[in-house]
Amino acid sequence: MAKIVNKKNSTKKDVIIEKASKLFREKGFGAASMRDLAEHVGVEAASLYNHIQSKAEILQAICFKIANEFMSNLEVVEASHHPTLKKMETIIRLHIRMMLDQYEYVYIADHEWRHLPEPYLSNFLNQRRNYRKRLGDLIEDGISKGELKAIEPYTAVLVILSAVSGIDSWQRSRKTTSAEALETNMVKFLIEGLKK
Amino acid sequence: MAKIVNKKNSTKKDVIIEKASKLFREKGFGAASMRDLAEHVGVEAASLYNHIQSKAEILQAICFKIANEFMSNLEVVEASHHPTLKKMETIIRLHIRMMLDQYEYVYIADHEWRHLPEPYLSNFLNQRRNYRKRLGDLIEDGISKGELKAIEPYTAVLVILSAVSGIDSWQRSRKTTSAEALETNMVKFLIEGLKK
Repeated sequence: MAKIVNKKNSTKKDVIIEKASKLFREKGFGAASMRDLAEHVGVEAASLYNHIQSKAEILQAICFKIANEFMSNLEVVEASHHPTLKKMETIIRLHIRMMLDQYEYVYIADHEWRHLPEPYLSNFLNQRRNYRKRLGDLIEDGISKGELKAIEPYTAVLVILSAVSGIDSWQRSRKTTSAEALETNMVKFLIEGLKK
Repeated sequence: MAKIVNKKNSTKKDVIIEKASKLFREKGFGAASMRDLAEHVGVEAASLYNHIQSKAEILQAICFKIANEFMSNLEVVEASHHPTLKKMETIIRLHIRMMLDQYEYVYIADHEWRHLPEPYLSNFLNQRRNYRKRLGDLIEDGISKGELKAIEPYTAVLVILSAVSGIDSWQRSRKTTSAEALETNMVKFLIEGLKK
Protein backbone atom coordinates (compact mmCIF):
# COMPACT_ATOMS: atom_id res chain seq x y z
CA MET A 1 0.00 0.00 0.00
CA ALA A 2 0.98 3.63 -0.48
CA LYS A 3 2.73 5.89 2.00
CA ILE A 4 0.91 8.80 3.62
CA VAL A 5 1.59 11.75 1.33
CA ASN A 6 1.59 15.06 3.15
CA LYS A 7 1.69 18.51 1.59
CA LYS A 8 4.36 21.05 2.53
CA ASN A 9 3.76 22.50 6.02
CA SER A 10 1.33 19.74 6.96
CA THR A 11 2.34 16.72 9.00
CA LYS A 12 1.25 13.14 8.34
CA LYS A 13 -0.99 13.54 11.37
CA ASP A 14 -2.69 16.51 9.65
CA VAL A 15 -3.36 14.36 6.60
CA ILE A 16 -4.88 11.61 8.74
CA ILE A 17 -7.09 14.11 10.59
CA GLU A 18 -8.21 15.64 7.30
CA LYS A 19 -9.23 12.23 5.93
CA ALA A 20 -10.80 11.27 9.25
CA SER A 21 -12.96 14.40 9.23
CA LYS A 22 -14.54 13.32 5.95
CA LEU A 23 -15.01 9.77 7.18
CA PHE A 24 -16.55 10.80 10.53
CA ARG A 25 -18.86 13.20 8.69
CA GLU A 26 -20.08 10.47 6.35
CA LYS A 27 -20.29 7.49 8.70
CA GLY A 28 -20.53 9.13 12.11
CA PHE A 29 -17.74 8.84 14.68
CA GLY A 30 -19.27 5.79 16.34
CA ALA A 31 -19.58 3.72 13.17
CA ALA A 32 -16.19 4.64 11.65
CA SER A 33 -13.40 2.20 12.49
CA MET A 34 -9.61 2.64 12.43
CA ARG A 35 -9.67 0.08 9.60
CA ASP A 36 -12.06 2.33 7.60
CA LEU A 37 -9.77 5.24 8.27
CA ALA A 38 -6.68 3.33 7.11
CA GLU A 39 -8.55 2.51 3.90
CA HIS A 40 -9.49 6.19 3.43
CA VAL A 41 -5.89 7.28 3.97
CA GLY A 42 -4.65 4.46 1.78
CA VAL A 43 -2.29 2.76 4.25
CA GLU A 44 -2.25 -0.31 6.51
CA ALA A 45 -4.07 0.15 9.82
CA ALA A 46 -0.82 -0.62 11.67
CA SER A 47 1.00 2.34 10.13
CA LEU A 48 -1.77 4.72 11.28
CA TYR A 49 -0.75 3.95 14.85
CA ASN A 50 2.68 5.43 14.16
CA HIS A 51 0.97 8.82 13.99
CA ILE A 52 -2.12 8.65 16.19
CA GLN A 53 -3.17 6.53 19.13
CA SER A 54 -6.94 6.31 18.70
CA LYS A 55 -10.08 7.63 17.04
CA ALA A 56 -10.72 9.69 20.18
CA GLU A 57 -7.41 11.50 19.72
CA ILE A 58 -8.52 12.60 16.24
CA LEU A 59 -11.94 13.70 17.46
CA GLN A 60 -10.28 15.70 20.21
CA ALA A 61 -7.93 17.38 17.70
CA ILE A 62 -10.87 18.33 15.46
CA CYS A 63 -13.17 19.61 18.21
CA PHE A 64 -10.51 21.76 19.88
CA LYS A 65 -9.11 23.06 16.59
CA ILE A 66 -12.57 24.46 15.79
CA ALA A 67 -13.37 25.66 19.31
CA ASN A 68 -9.99 27.42 19.54
CA GLU A 69 -10.40 29.05 16.15
CA PHE A 70 -13.76 30.54 17.16
CA MET A 71 -12.42 31.58 20.55
CA SER A 72 -9.30 33.30 19.17
CA ASN A 73 -11.44 35.22 16.72
CA LEU A 74 -13.82 36.27 19.50
CA GLU A 75 -10.90 37.52 21.59
CA VAL A 76 -9.61 39.66 18.72
CA VAL A 77 -13.11 41.04 18.16
CA GLU A 78 -13.67 41.76 21.85
CA ALA A 79 -10.38 43.64 22.05
CA SER A 80 -11.15 45.76 18.97
CA HIS A 81 -12.79 49.18 19.08
CA HIS A 82 -15.35 48.69 16.33
CA PRO A 83 -19.05 49.39 16.84
CA THR A 84 -20.96 46.35 18.13
CA LEU A 85 -22.76 45.78 14.83
CA LYS A 86 -19.40 45.56 13.07
CA LYS A 87 -18.12 43.17 15.74
CA MET A 88 -21.17 40.95 15.30
CA GLU A 89 -20.73 41.01 11.54
CA THR A 90 -17.12 39.85 11.87
CA ILE A 91 -18.21 36.97 14.09
CA ILE A 92 -21.14 35.96 11.88
CA ARG A 93 -18.91 36.04 8.78
CA LEU A 94 -16.34 33.81 10.45
CA HIS A 95 -19.05 31.30 11.37
CA ILE A 96 -20.39 31.28 7.82
CA ARG A 97 -16.93 30.94 6.26
CA MET A 98 -15.98 28.12 8.59
CA MET A 99 -19.17 26.27 7.53
CA LEU A 100 -18.23 26.85 3.90
CA ASP A 101 -14.47 26.23 4.02
CA GLN A 102 -14.03 23.78 6.89
CA TYR A 103 -17.40 22.10 6.71
CA GLU A 104 -16.42 18.60 7.88
CA TYR A 105 -14.48 19.93 10.88
CA VAL A 106 -17.27 22.24 12.01
CA TYR A 107 -19.87 19.54 11.44
CA ILE A 108 -17.95 17.11 13.65
CA ALA A 109 -17.32 19.68 16.39
CA ASP A 110 -21.08 20.46 16.30
CA HIS A 111 -22.45 16.91 16.17
CA GLU A 112 -19.89 14.39 17.36
CA TRP A 113 -18.44 16.08 20.47
CA ARG A 114 -20.61 13.78 22.63
CA HIS A 115 -18.08 11.02 21.94
CA LEU A 116 -15.15 12.94 23.48
CA PRO A 117 -13.65 11.12 26.46
CA GLU A 118 -13.29 12.93 29.78
CA PRO A 119 -11.73 15.31 30.74
CA TYR A 120 -11.94 16.59 27.14
CA LEU A 121 -15.71 16.42 27.07
CA SER A 122 -16.15 18.72 30.09
CA ASN A 123 -13.43 21.00 28.83
CA PHE A 124 -15.08 21.27 25.41
CA LEU A 125 -18.53 21.92 26.87
CA ASN A 126 -17.13 24.61 29.18
CA GLN A 127 -15.43 26.29 26.26
CA ARG A 128 -18.64 26.17 24.23
CA ARG A 129 -20.74 27.56 27.08
CA ASN A 130 -18.17 30.28 27.67
CA TYR A 131 -18.17 31.19 23.97
CA ARG A 132 -21.96 31.53 23.83
CA LYS A 133 -22.00 33.46 27.07
CA ARG A 134 -19.43 35.97 25.77
CA LEU A 135 -21.32 36.30 22.50
CA GLY A 136 -24.44 37.08 24.55
CA ASP A 137 -22.45 39.59 26.62
CA LEU A 138 -21.29 41.32 23.45
CA ILE A 139 -24.90 41.66 22.27
CA GLU A 140 -26.01 42.86 25.70
CA ASP A 141 -23.24 45.45 25.69
CA GLY A 142 -24.37 46.64 22.24
CA ILE A 143 -27.94 46.99 23.48
CA SER A 144 -26.93 48.95 26.56
CA LYS A 145 -24.85 51.29 24.37
CA GLY A 146 -27.93 51.81 22.17
CA GLU A 147 -26.20 50.24 19.18
CA LEU A 148 -28.40 47.16 18.89
CA LYS A 149 -32.13 46.79 19.29
CA ALA A 150 -33.42 45.49 22.61
CA ILE A 151 -33.50 41.77 21.93
CA GLU A 152 -33.01 39.03 24.50
CA PRO A 153 -29.30 38.13 24.01
CA TYR A 154 -29.73 34.36 24.49
CA THR A 155 -32.32 34.23 21.71
CA ALA A 156 -30.12 36.32 19.43
CA VAL A 157 -27.18 33.93 19.94
CA LEU A 158 -29.51 30.96 19.34
CA VAL A 159 -30.88 32.44 16.11
CA ILE A 160 -27.44 33.37 14.76
CA LEU A 161 -25.73 30.06 15.52
CA SER A 162 -28.71 28.00 14.35
CA ALA A 163 -29.07 29.97 11.12
CA VAL A 164 -25.40 29.47 10.31
CA SER A 165 -25.56 25.76 11.10
CA GLY A 166 -28.36 25.52 8.51
CA ILE A 167 -25.60 25.88 5.90
CA ASP A 168 -25.26 22.16 6.56
CA SER A 169 -28.37 21.56 4.44
CA TRP A 170 -27.00 23.91 1.76
CA GLN A 171 -23.76 21.90 1.72
CA ARG A 172 -25.70 18.70 1.12
CA SER A 173 -28.26 20.03 -1.38
CA ARG A 174 -27.91 20.97 -5.00
CA LYS A 175 -26.54 24.45 -4.18
CA THR A 176 -28.58 26.64 -6.48
CA THR A 177 -27.04 29.56 -4.58
CA SER A 178 -23.31 30.32 -4.67
CA ALA A 179 -21.28 30.41 -1.47
CA GLU A 180 -20.65 34.16 -1.90
CA ALA A 181 -24.35 34.93 -2.36
CA LEU A 182 -25.18 32.76 0.61
CA GLU A 183 -22.70 34.61 2.82
CA THR A 184 -23.81 38.06 1.65
CA ASN A 185 -27.49 37.31 2.10
CA MET A 186 -27.15 35.57 5.40
CA VAL A 187 -25.11 38.44 6.86
CA LYS A 188 -27.65 40.94 5.51
CA PHE A 189 -30.52 39.03 7.10
CA LEU A 190 -28.87 38.45 10.48
CA ILE A 191 -27.31 41.88 10.89
CA GLU A 192 -30.64 43.48 10.07
CA GLY A 193 -32.19 41.45 12.88
CA LEU A 194 -29.77 43.05 15.34
CA LYS A 195 -29.87 46.59 14.02
CA LYS A 196 -31.73 49.17 16.02
CA MET B 1 -50.47 -5.38 32.34
CA ALA B 2 -52.67 -2.31 32.02
CA LYS B 3 -54.96 -1.44 29.15
CA ILE B 4 -54.19 1.47 26.82
CA VAL B 5 -55.99 4.42 28.38
CA ASN B 6 -57.08 7.00 25.84
CA LYS B 7 -58.45 10.46 26.56
CA LYS B 8 -61.78 11.61 25.14
CA ASN B 9 -61.55 12.30 21.40
CA SER B 10 -58.27 10.44 21.05
CA THR B 11 -58.05 6.87 19.82
CA LYS B 12 -55.81 4.16 21.25
CA LYS B 13 -53.70 4.61 18.13
CA ASP B 14 -53.23 8.30 19.05
CA VAL B 15 -52.01 7.30 22.50
CA ILE B 16 -49.51 4.85 20.99
CA ILE B 17 -48.22 7.46 18.53
CA GLU B 18 -47.87 10.01 21.32
CA LYS B 19 -45.78 7.59 23.41
CA ALA B 20 -43.81 6.51 20.35
CA SER B 21 -42.88 10.13 19.55
CA LYS B 22 -41.19 10.47 22.94
CA LEU B 23 -39.44 7.10 22.56
CA PHE B 24 -38.22 7.82 19.00
CA ARG B 25 -36.98 11.23 20.15
CA GLU B 26 -34.98 9.73 23.01
CA LYS B 27 -33.63 6.55 21.41
CA GLY B 28 -33.84 7.32 17.70
CA PHE B 29 -36.22 5.45 15.39
CA GLY B 30 -33.63 2.84 14.43
CA ALA B 31 -32.77 1.83 17.99
CA ALA B 32 -36.33 1.84 19.38
CA SER B 33 -38.06 -1.55 19.24
CA MET B 34 -41.75 -2.49 19.33
CA ARG B 35 -40.94 -4.11 22.68
CA ASP B 36 -39.59 -0.77 24.01
CA LEU B 37 -42.73 0.91 22.77
CA ALA B 38 -45.00 -1.64 24.47
CA GLU B 39 -43.11 -0.97 27.70
CA HIS B 40 -43.56 2.82 27.26
CA VAL B 41 -47.28 2.39 26.61
CA GLY B 42 -47.57 -0.08 29.46
CA VAL B 43 -49.04 -3.05 27.54
CA GLU B 44 -47.90 -6.37 26.06
CA ALA B 45 -46.21 -6.08 22.66
CA ALA B 46 -48.90 -8.37 21.19
CA SER B 47 -51.69 -5.94 22.04
CA LEU B 48 -49.87 -3.08 20.27
CA TYR B 49 -50.40 -4.98 17.02
CA ASN B 50 -54.17 -4.69 17.47
CA HIS B 51 -53.75 -0.99 16.78
CA ILE B 52 -50.70 -0.56 14.58
CA GLN B 53 -48.84 -2.82 12.18
CA SER B 54 -45.26 -1.58 12.49
CA LYS B 55 -42.85 1.12 13.68
CA ALA B 56 -42.83 2.48 10.13
CA GLU B 57 -46.58 3.05 10.27
CA ILE B 58 -46.10 5.25 13.33
CA LEU B 59 -43.22 7.18 11.75
CA GLN B 60 -45.34 7.76 8.68
CA ALA B 61 -48.26 9.04 10.81
CA ILE B 62 -45.94 11.47 12.66
CA CYS B 63 -44.10 12.79 9.58
CA PHE B 64 -47.26 13.42 7.58
CA LYS B 65 -49.18 14.87 10.51
CA ILE B 66 -46.47 17.54 10.81
CA ALA B 67 -45.99 18.08 7.07
CA ASN B 68 -49.76 18.42 6.58
CA GLU B 69 -50.11 20.85 9.46
CA PHE B 70 -47.44 23.14 7.99
CA MET B 71 -48.89 22.81 4.51
CA SER B 72 -52.48 23.58 5.57
CA ASN B 73 -51.27 26.67 7.40
CA LEU B 74 -49.29 27.79 4.36
CA GLU B 75 -52.36 27.40 2.16
CA VAL B 76 -54.45 29.55 4.49
CA VAL B 77 -51.70 32.18 4.57
CA GLU B 78 -51.26 32.16 0.79
CA ALA B 79 -55.00 32.63 0.28
CA SER B 80 -55.16 35.55 2.74
CA HIS B 81 -54.84 39.18 1.76
CA HIS B 82 -52.40 40.31 4.43
CA PRO B 83 -49.16 42.14 3.62
CA THR B 84 -46.24 39.76 3.01
CA LEU B 85 -44.53 40.66 6.28
CA LYS B 86 -47.68 39.69 8.19
CA LYS B 87 -47.89 36.45 6.21
CA MET B 88 -44.28 35.62 7.03
CA GLU B 89 -44.87 36.41 10.68
CA THR B 90 -47.82 34.00 10.79
CA ILE B 91 -45.69 31.27 9.27
CA ILE B 92 -42.70 31.91 11.55
CA ARG B 93 -44.95 31.93 14.62
CA LEU B 94 -46.49 28.60 13.64
CA HIS B 95 -43.02 27.07 13.22
CA ILE B 96 -41.93 28.35 16.62
CA ARG B 97 -45.11 27.19 18.36
CA MET B 98 -44.90 23.75 16.80
CA MET B 99 -41.32 23.46 18.14
CA LEU B 100 -42.57 24.52 21.56
CA ASP B 101 -45.87 22.59 21.74
CA GLN B 102 -45.28 19.53 19.56
CA TYR B 103 -41.54 19.25 20.00
CA GLU B 104 -41.20 15.45 19.73
CA TYR B 105 -43.33 15.26 16.59
CA VAL B 106 -41.47 18.07 14.82
CA TYR B 107 -38.11 16.67 15.90
CA ILE B 108 -38.96 13.27 14.41
CA ALA B 109 -40.34 14.74 11.17
CA ASP B 110 -37.09 16.79 10.92
CA HIS B 111 -34.56 14.10 11.84
CA GLU B 112 -36.02 10.62 11.37
CA TRP B 113 -37.83 10.90 8.02
CA ARG B 114 -34.89 9.08 6.38
CA HIS B 115 -36.32 5.85 7.80
CA LEU B 116 -39.67 6.20 5.97
CA PRO B 117 -40.28 3.31 3.57
CA GLU B 118 -41.10 4.05 -0.07
CA PRO B 119 -43.37 5.43 -1.49
CA TYR B 120 -43.78 7.51 1.68
CA LEU B 121 -40.19 8.71 1.64
CA SER B 122 -40.44 10.23 -1.84
CA ASN B 123 -43.86 11.62 -1.07
CA PHE B 124 -42.57 13.26 2.14
CA LEU B 125 -39.50 14.73 0.42
CA ASN B 126 -41.64 16.12 -2.39
CA GLN B 127 -43.97 17.73 0.10
CA ARG B 128 -41.01 19.24 1.97
CA ARG B 129 -39.40 20.56 -1.22
CA ASN B 130 -42.74 21.97 -2.33
CA TYR B 131 -43.23 23.67 1.05
CA ARG B 132 -39.81 25.36 0.95
CA LYS B 133 -40.33 26.36 -2.68
CA ARG B 134 -43.67 28.02 -1.88
CA LEU B 135 -42.17 29.77 1.14
CA GLY B 136 -39.44 31.10 -1.17
CA ASP B 137 -42.09 32.17 -3.70
CA LEU B 138 -43.93 34.07 -0.97
CA ILE B 139 -40.73 35.95 -0.08
CA GLU B 140 -39.97 36.61 -3.75
CA ASP B 141 -43.47 37.97 -4.21
CA GLY B 142 -43.00 40.26 -1.20
CA ILE B 143 -39.72 41.56 -2.65
CA SER B 144 -41.23 42.24 -6.07
CA LYS B 145 -44.09 44.14 -4.40
CA GLY B 146 -41.50 46.22 -2.53
CA GLU B 147 -42.70 44.90 0.84
CA LEU B 148 -39.56 42.96 1.76
CA LYS B 149 -35.93 43.85 1.29
CA ALA B 150 -34.10 42.35 -1.68
CA ILE B 151 -32.75 39.17 -0.14
CA GLU B 152 -32.13 35.92 -1.96
CA PRO B 153 -35.31 33.90 -1.10
CA TYR B 154 -33.55 30.54 -0.70
CA THR B 155 -31.20 31.99 1.92
CA ALA B 156 -34.09 33.64 3.74
CA VAL B 157 -35.96 30.32 3.94
CA LEU B 158 -32.77 28.60 5.11
CA VAL B 159 -32.16 31.18 7.85
CA ILE B 160 -35.76 31.12 9.08
CA LEU B 161 -36.16 27.35 9.20
CA SER B 162 -32.70 26.80 10.71
CA ALA B 163 -33.19 29.47 13.36
CA VAL B 164 -36.48 27.91 14.41
CA SER B 165 -35.00 24.43 14.52
CA GLY B 166 -32.41 25.81 16.97
CA ILE B 167 -35.24 25.77 19.53
CA ASP B 168 -34.21 22.13 19.79
CA SER B 169 -31.20 23.18 21.85
CA TRP B 170 -33.41 25.47 23.96
CA GLN B 171 -35.76 22.51 24.62
CA ARG B 172 -32.83 20.44 25.87
CA SER B 173 -31.04 23.13 27.86
CA ARG B 174 -31.83 24.73 31.18
CA LYS B 175 -34.31 27.18 29.61
CA THR B 176 -33.30 30.42 31.25
CA THR B 177 -35.66 32.09 28.78
CA SER B 178 -39.42 31.49 28.85
CA ALA B 179 -41.22 30.08 25.80
CA GLU B 180 -43.13 33.36 25.35
CA ALA B 181 -39.97 35.48 25.47
CA LEU B 182 -38.29 33.10 23.05
CA GLU B 183 -41.17 33.37 20.59
CA THR B 184 -41.40 37.17 20.85
CA ASN B 185 -37.67 37.69 20.45
CA MET B 186 -37.22 35.22 17.65
CA VAL B 187 -40.08 36.76 15.66
CA LYS B 188 -38.67 40.23 16.27
CA PHE B 189 -35.24 39.14 15.04
CA LEU B 190 -36.41 37.23 11.97
CA ILE B 191 -39.09 39.68 10.83
CA GLU B 192 -36.58 42.50 11.11
CA GLY B 193 -34.28 40.57 8.79
CA LEU B 194 -37.00 40.55 6.12
CA LYS B 195 -38.23 44.12 6.55
CA LYS B 196 -37.32 46.66 3.92
